[in-house]
Amino acid sequence: MKNYKIALLKGDGIGPEIVTQAVKVLNRAAERFGFTISYDEALLGGSAIDATGVPLPPETIEKCKATDSTLLGAVGGPKWDSLPGNLRPEAGLLGIRGALGLFANLRPAKIFEQLREASPLKAEIIGDNLDIMVVRELTGGIYFGERGRRTVNGAEAAYDTEMYSVPEIERIARVGFRMAEKRDGRLCSVDKANVLESSRLWRATVARIGKEEYPDIKLSHMYVDNCAMQLVRNPKQFDVIVTSNIFGDILSDEASMISGSIGMLASASLSEGKSGLYEPIHGSAPDIAGTGLANPLATILSAAMMLRYSLEEPQAAQAIEDAVSEVLKTARTADISAEGIWQVTCEEMGDMVCGLL
Amino acid sequence: MKNYKIALLKGDGIGPEIVTQAVKVLNRAAERFGFTISYDEALLGGSAIDATGVPLPPETIEKCKATDSTLLGAVGGPKWDSLPGNLRPEAGLLGIRGALGLFANLRPAKIFEQLREASPLKAEIIGDNLDIMVVRELTGGIYFGERGRRTVNGAEAAYDTEMYSVPEIERIARVGFRMAEKRDGRLCSVDKANVLESSRLWRATVARIGKEEYPDIKLSHMYVDNCAMQLVRNPKQFDVIVTSNIFGDILSDEASMISGSIGMLASASLSEGKSGLYEPIHGSAPDIAGTGLANPLATILSAAMMLRYSLEEPQAAQAIEDAVSEVLKTARTADISAEGIWQVTCEEMGDMVCGLL
Ligand SMILES: CC(C)[C@H](C(=O)O)[C@@H](O)C(=O)O
Ligand SMILES: CC(C)[C@H](C(=O)O)[C@@H](O)C(=O)O
Repeated sequence: MKNYKIALLKGDGIGPEIVTQAVKVLNRAAERFGFTISYDEALLGGSAIDATGVPLPPETIEKCKATDSTLLGAVGGPKWDSLPGNLRPEAGLLGIRGALGLFANLRPAKIFEQLREASPLKAEIIGDNLDIMVVRELTGGIYFGERGRRTVNGAEAAYDTEMYSVPEIERIARVGFRMAEKRDGRLCSVDKANVLESSRLWRATVARIGKEEYPDIKLSHMYVDNCAMQLVRNPKQFDVIVTSNIFGDILSDEASMISGSIGMLASASLSEGKSGLYEPIHGSAPDIAGTGLANPLATILSAAMMLRYSLEEPQAAQAIEDAVSEVLKTARTADISAEGIWQVTCEEMGDMVCGLL
Repeated sequence: MKNYKIALLKGDGIGPEIVTQAVKVLNRAAERFGFTISYDEALLGGSAIDATGVPLPPETIEKCKATDSTLLGAVGGPKWDSLPGNLRPEAGLLGIRGALGLFANLRPAKIFEQLREASPLKAEIIGDNLDIMVVRELTGGIYFGERGRRTVNGAEAAYDTEMYSVPEIERIARVGFRMAEKRDGRLCSVDKANVLESSRLWRATVARIGKEEYPDIKLSHMYVDNCAMQLVRNPKQFDVIVTSNIFGDILSDEASMISGSIGMLASASLSEGKSGLYEPIHGSAPDIAGTGLANPLATILSAAMMLRYSLEEPQAAQAIEDAVSEVLKTARTADISAEGIWQVTCEEMGDMVCGLL
């Protein structure tokens, strides 16, 4: 029987409880589809700071590298907010993205038909089956460029550098084009080429890759300010969006909010190889940790993405996604509760998804 | 009688026709409130490129400096899109912001009650009288930082620098605080302090100015990705937002789209002194130029803002704003048309506003 090794980074806040439910679901899927999974836990974020003094212990990187893929809960919380930048939970997140070379962040923003009502947008704006995929560059740009302080005209100043090289743009562009190939064949590249030099190189490079390698994909270019508008005005126009690290951070959060059910949205961060890091897009919600209110579905769907993109178990992935769709008809956690539908705890939700598998 | 001197930068596309209507309204207001205005036209953007080869002729800067304030239509269009960055219409816009020291960009995003239906957001999300003011830093950050190309590991790369100094942050923070004082007393400063060094300096500086100079204003801090979400999830939570040039570019466009009537939104760009540059937030819409379809109301409201912020004619400003509110009940341009309401041209709309003054 095939055995997969998965690193678990439970993280902080609701992280442990949602990962526990996802593991339960993974085990049930493994049983049903005839494979096994062994898990290796490691520390990241606040819990790592508490135990080791740093948000990303070297051991965590080693463990993740030694497995087929990594499942992450969520990191961060007010407890660690006053630490200096490089010792905060977020630094652990950025560190592991860099250390594992996770340059491609896939953030689907889709509306679950059962949760249509939850969107802040009017029904006619979201239309039917809204499904946008944001492909965000994750190991470059202003997140990883040179930064620091200096003195300008006698005053203190701080700077950060947005930088992209041609190979960095090429590889993320290819991820965007390949994603569009598997979906509706439309890729929108988002930049600020009317102002930024890095965006001008971005635009020219994406255009060239499109012309040379993916002539059948319908490529368009949009300025980031316009994209932020268009996501609200007419989100249906988008299939796949590819963009830089910082623009992707902003636009993918905006796009996910359009779905109105952020507790449902999964994400994948991929490297050149097969392995990746999978996590819900929501945060660690320290205020509800331990109360049973957390929604484990985004983490369960992240586990499904892992089965599809990193473990080559697409059937198991599909079965989990179907079970999640199904369960929404009868049971919901508090964040997506609706009249006439049973409100369940985090653990009960995990059990119900298992039951439907 | 008081005489004001105003520079007119009609610009490209629909620019000339909407500015013409705003001038008509300004003249009518001047007549009614007992002052006069003399105008001096100058070139900016595509029309300047066509006439002089550059998007911002030195003469334009001189003319603007010699007047009490500047009214701008809109610049840009596909005709000039393939020119190199520094020769494009947008470079003229950035250039004049820099040359006139227009460091504070005020972008109100409000819902006109008569146009509530136009918002893509559900009625319960926008609530009553949604009115957000985005204060965007306009002459610093990545728009004006060092940029260029270099070679990284043998590959071509391009970079831009986000940089802010303490005095730059202080002065825009004060604009934000003062604006909040005049409104609901709440200021939300938006940054990405969990990643960017410039944002950490931004946050610390805004917090200090708040504590030292504006202890009565309720100051909060929010990450830009979260803000992009919250604007869609619950825009009512915001009163005044203060943020950097690039984040303000993105967030103010998103916020304005929430109103659903971008053809209605004005903006002001202010320097240390009294004078400023006023313009609609929408673009030059070259596709409808000359058809009579353009909506002049955002430009007319920009002229009203000018009367209020730069010319000390608040009564005239109020009268224009009231006339615009009034006219919406009976007549609309195509972009905001509604059943049972007379659809008028750009020129007719200008005449109707004058008639109500
Ligand atoms: C926590 C933060 C550093 C992170 C980011 O900006 O990338 C988060 O917002 C995300 O999008 O995963
Ligand atoms: C045209 C462009 C350079 C400009 C900007 O980004 O500032 C525009 O988007 C704006 O917001 O006024």
